[in-house]
Amino acid sequence: MNKKTLGPGITFFPQPATWIVSVDKEGEIDVMTASWVSMVSKTPPTIALSLHHGRQTYANIQQSGVFTVNIIPSTQVVAGDYCGLISGRDVDKLATTDLTPVAALHVAAPILAESPLNLECRVINTVVIGEYRLILGEVLEIHIAAAACHDHGYDAAVIDPLVYLGGIREYWGLGEKVGTAYSIGKELLPK
Amino acid sequence: MNKKTLGPGITFFPQPATWIVSVDKEGEIDVMTASWVSMVSKTPPTIALSLHHGRQTYANIQQSGVFTVNIIPSTQVVAGDYCGLISGRDVDKLATTDLTPVAALHVAAPILAESPLNLECRVINTVVIGEYRLILGEVLEIHIAAAACHDHGYDAAVIDPLVYLGGIREYWGLGEKVGTAYSIGKELLPK
Repeated sequence: MNKKTLGPGITFFPQPATWIVSVDKEGEIDVMTASWVSMVSKTPPTIALSLHHGRQTYANIQQSGVFTVNIIPSTQVVAGDYCGLISGRDVDKLATTDLTPVAALHVAAPILAESPLNLECRVINTVVIGEYRLILGEVLEIHIAAAACHDHGYDAAVIDPLVYLGGIREYWGLGEKVGTAYSIGKELLPK
Repeated sequence: MNKKTLGPGITFFPQPATWIVSVDKEGEIDVMTASWVSMVSKTPPTIALSLHHGRQTYANIQQSGVFTVNIIPSTQVVAGDYCGLISGRDVDKLATTDLTPVAALHVAAPILAESPLNLECRVINTVVIGEYRLILGEVLEIHIAAAACHDHGYDAAVIDPLVYLGGIREYWGLGEKVGTAYSIGKELLPK
């Protein structure tokens, strides 16, 4: 495959588009959009979230020690992008977007009703990387849209998560399922 | 939206399916599939990769201090899944999959010819999370398929990255572009 080199930098590959919801010590809610989000451990179940240290969300998380991760469905791409455009210091993003906070079970930060998949997280570590802060959050609870649950598992098409391609700043939807993991590769195993 | 609670755990949202290529101190190459991969900083450009501490890839990265991240295209879903099924301690995964290592520019670990997007990384920090190791790698070089480059940017459909939904162990393809980030949300800004 003929290739070009681009030098060092950030690039694009599938990442989740999420609303991160946080509260300050007065309980004031902020919502921001983030895609630098990844599962990082099963022991304990842990998610990593990276933010610029100047974000209001980071200040809130430092104060409260908790946050929620709310998967943005593709139908909410406008509200999803909006919450990444501006700071909660300037406007009430919940009011502008008509997003609805719902009390979480274990943390002070609410989850969002309009998101079909929500994680409640408690900070267990923070790592400094230049101007960014990599926040490690233990996943205390998962909420999922009942419509996405069926007898044998979950239907990703109902969740309909936005896929974010960061380096080119594009939102995409999911296409088709192309395989089952820990299964489709077995055809290369010795017979 | 009616929801169910699932308790603590890991869940599914879009993550990249990647081949992580590493070398041990004798230069022996290993390939594994990983999806717990995320950009985490621009200063410096940094990628996070989380692995179980028992993986051969982790041993190799400890020895060499470098690795490459190679985006798996959807056409390679079988070889992609295969490299996550078994350990490089047991078989020569490159031979079984016909994947082709190509010398990188800045690190001892090669990139893969069959991957349309490759990152060369040097370890700058490692964080312990239970049985997992979160490896922070500075991105020293990016390689991209020339066919995905056009005058005004890059064509994600040519890269055709697999999307991995971890908690339900499914591979999906990208669907359609649904919006441009830092743009589509502006319709909610004050007129």
